[in-house]
Amino acid sequence: MEIQPNLRHDSATPLYRQLYEEIAGRIRSGELENGERLPATRELAGQLGLNRTTVSAAYDLLETDGLISGQVGRGSFVTAHRPVAAGVDWAALLESGDTPAAFPSGSADREVISFSTSRPARDLFPLDDFRASCAAVMARRDLADILQLGSPSGYEPLRQYLLEGARRQGLAGSRDDLIITNGCQQALDLIGRVLLRPADAVGVEDPVYPGLKKLLAGMGARLVGIPLSAEGVDVPQLTRLLERQRLRCLIVTPNFQNPTGLTLSLPARQSLSEAARAAGVPVVENDAYGELRYWGEPLPAIKQLDAAGGTVLLRSFSKVSFPGLRVGWAVGPKALIARLRQAKEASDLHTDQLSQAVLLEFAVSGKLEAHRTRVLAAGTERLTAALEACGRLPAGTRWTRPEGGMNLWVRLPEPVDAAELLPRAREEGIAYLPGSYFSVSRLERGALRLSFAGPAPDQIRAGIEILGRIVADELENAARNREPAPAMV
Amino acid sequence: MEIQPNLRHDSATPLYRQLYEEIAGRIRSGELENGERLPATRELAGQLGLNRTTVSAAYDLLETDGLISGQVGRGSFVTAHRPVAAGVDWAALLESGDTPAAFPSGSADREVISFSTSRPARDLFPLDDFRASCAAVMARRDLADILQLGSPSGYEPLRQYLLEGARRQGLAGSRDDLIITNGCQQALDLIGRVLLRPADAVGVEDPVYPGLKKLLAGMGARLVGIPLSAEGVDVPQLTRLLERQRLRCLIVTPNFQNPTGLTLSLPARQSLSEAARAAGVPVVENDAYGELRYWGEPLPAIKQLDAAGGTVLLRSFSKVSFPGLRVGWAVGPKALIARLRQAKEASDLHTDQLSQAVLLEFAVSGKLEAHRTRVLAAGTERLTAALEACGRLPAGTRWTRPEGGMNLWVRLPEPVDAAELLPRAREEGIAYLPGSYFSVSRLERGALRLSFAGPAPDQIRAGIEILGRIVADELENAARNREPAPAMV
Repeated sequence: MEIQPNLRHDSATPLYRQLYEEIAGRIRSGELENGERLPATRELAGQLGLNRTTVSAAYDLLETDGLISGQVGRGSFVTAHRPVAAGVDWAALLESGDTPAAFPSGSADREVISFSTSRPARDLFPLDDFRASCAAVMARRDLADILQLGSPSGYEPLRQYLLEGARRQGLAGSRDDLIITNGCQQALDLIGRVLLRPADAVGVEDPVYPGLKKLLAGMGARLVGIPLSAEGVDVPQLTRLLERQRLRCLIVTPNFQNPTGLTLSLPARQSLSEAARAAGVPVVENDAYGELRYWGEPLPAIKQLDAAGGTVLLRSFSKVSFPGLRVGWAVGPKALIARLRQAKEASDLHTDQLSQAVLLEFAVSGKLEAHRTRVLAAGTERLTAALEACGRLPAGTRWTRPEGGMNLWVRLPEPVDAAELLPRAREEGIAYLPGSYFSVSRLERGALRLSFAGPAPDQIRAGIEILGRIVADELENAARNREPAPAMV
Repeated sequence: MEIQPNLRHDSATPLYRQLYEEIAGRIRSGELENGERLPATRELAGQLGLNRTTVSAAYDLLETDGLISGQVGRGSFVTAHRPVAAGVDWAALLESGDTPAAFPSGSADREVISFSTSRPARDLFPLDDFRASCAAVMARRDLADILQLGSPSGYEPLRQYLLEGARRQGLAGSRDDLIITNGCQQALDLIGRVLLRPADAVGVEDPVYPGLKKLLAGMGARLVGIPLSAEGVDVPQLTRLLERQRLRCLIVTPNFQNPTGLTLSLPARQSLSEAARAAGVPVVENDAYGELRYWGEPLPAIKQLDAAGGTVLLRSFSKVSFPGLRVGWAVGPKALIARLRQAKEASDLHTDQLSQAVLLEFAVSGKLEAHRTRVLAAGTERLTAALEACGRLPAGTRWTRPEGGMNLWVRLPEPVDAAELLPRAREEGIAYLPGSYFSVSRLERGALRLSFAGPAPDQIRAGIEILGRIVADELENAARNREPAPAMV
């Protein structure tokens, strides 16, 4: 019997648990049959390059589940009986899945200053303006049309408004079309559906946000992490990668990338677009944060630079206005958009029309732009506070210098492990997501994401000060532990 | 070279076009290489059991596209050159897809009485009640929470309301949970994602609505059509099927099935549930129409009859209230719902919260129930009109007798082909969907779906009268053509 599990060393799921799930799945599916002998723990550990204790822990779990039984001196045997006519065995049917995502949740603990979620501050929502937009929609003559079954392409007045805007900005040419989706996340999902086949290689930034990792992993894609330089995607490395390996597509966030906050320079955008074109690889330009630039010069989208029609651009109302309303869009070549439309129809018929109509009203009435001005002011203040506070972190700490968006990336000095530090951080009143949530193939143990758009500026300062204190403590402990242990007397 | 395309004889896409797409895809993907010889048309026609003209038509299209070239006496050869560094070849990347859905669209043609779409009448929408519900949401203290990023499980106040309702009705037990989705369609999509592996066999009613066929086909599932008796799913046949074949799951609509309008009797529900339990096959109970019963006794859901926890029930606000607002839900075993939650998060984070809040308000304020009363009265009137009008269709026509929902199934007498009749029907001012849109493996050429919820009763009567007239004409023509042709002189 050969066990060659696809273990992810950078996963938040421990290796023993991954191994356990792999073997349990094979037993439940009947691939490993009743009575079959498992390799000895030492043997399997050797094969897989794991510690023997890791394999033992996996076997213990399997035994606890009644899936194997160990006999001293003889090894472990599959003992699970496949259920016969005993109703639906959901555990077996759902075998292929991940364990539920174990995001550190901060909701129960009201005292914590949370840097965990990349979303806008709730108290910035312009409720009166929103109410006015909603009231305007209620007074519309086509209200009944809004409530009736709609088009997979989106609510046509909004679609036209967005398409005209995209044309004016040079983001859409005559060979382009636009489809409305439930935020950028669904656009990525639909693109994955029409483009990806199992085991296709997809180029993504490394680190990248967990929502994209999970989506692609769920589709059976192989993630190829592209390292980031100080200016986002390391384009020379990407270019070499494209020459070496066939990527099915490339997904990048050129503006204020999540989690690093980095922005791709204009020459890098040009080189990236050219390298992708030369390789015949489509570029998915995820631009959820693009409108949240707090300082510095706006840069053209990759979509604007690509005359060859190999790019699809994703945007959304969610980050700049109301994340609870799920409305985004994709602009790209007509052939692609036509296929996305079919996938959208199969997926959920169409995007909710009430929110589409309200957001259109919010936009055309000028309220969105007024709101964006306030959001930019608030973001400027928050990012400034965050960067200043980072300057007081212990020596050796490095961090990115975003010019917009909602996230920055902090690298704590060695040997501090951001994941190990988190329980203490939460006790002291702050929360963040450690680097392991974002890593594709390069785990930076000292890294963490600070999402700065939610907390108020004074909370940001206070929170980063707490972080600095516990990191300093940790460094001191580490230094103490490096001292040779005294002789036992 | 072997070509064994998966041709669908019941598809709306002509066979020559399916064959063309199959071969074009293989050429574009490089599977068929430049210079490779295609089989002679006669040879391929023989292999595939097709007319030689069908194969010739496909080859003509391939030649037009520059993908093959024919040389007299030598056969046809692949001539396509794979694009080299010439940008993104979208046609090749998107090769696996269907041609765009060719639903007969009636939107441009305002005069047509449309029986094509299974959706409520626009003029029944209670706009003032809807406005009042919306205003109430605008006045809520938690409005900012509604606008903020939400939970993949759904807007919690609505989720609790629906879960309590499900518990009161015996639809949810202590081992069940509930997730909110973008209508029933997304619930089916999410279930497919967590349950189906490519080539899994899924049992569905035959005929079944195109949205489900497309969704499952897009996931690479193998559809196994279960014939319908006068009472919906033919349970004895299903039972034999379950003994013979391993189904991954079974998807049924026990109330007012789309397209037939048929309802599964109580004993049939019990037998179906028992047969599925015995086979260990999960049942997905799609109940989008259940609340639209115009007469007769309501029946318990399969979910209520299944104590063994093998059923997941799907419901929606869309059919009974506003289809433009995409809010449905799934109630089922906790293990399944937990996985659906993960799939939902990957797919689009969560369902739009504005509509969830408005529909909750619409429901708790009693407006939904008041609206349902009006919808039931209107549906009763429409279905009565439709059934009466069907009584005046030409002799030999058969039709189902639904007790609710939005659809009935008409079988025209032989040799009338409902698809062939459609262009004339549209000229005469009516539209419907022919049986081919719904068939899984049993094509009834004379069948068509009449969706009666949209048109007003007098339009229904007028429309079915037109149908009767053109069917009578067609029968007369057919009878004339059966007469032996006179000798050529």
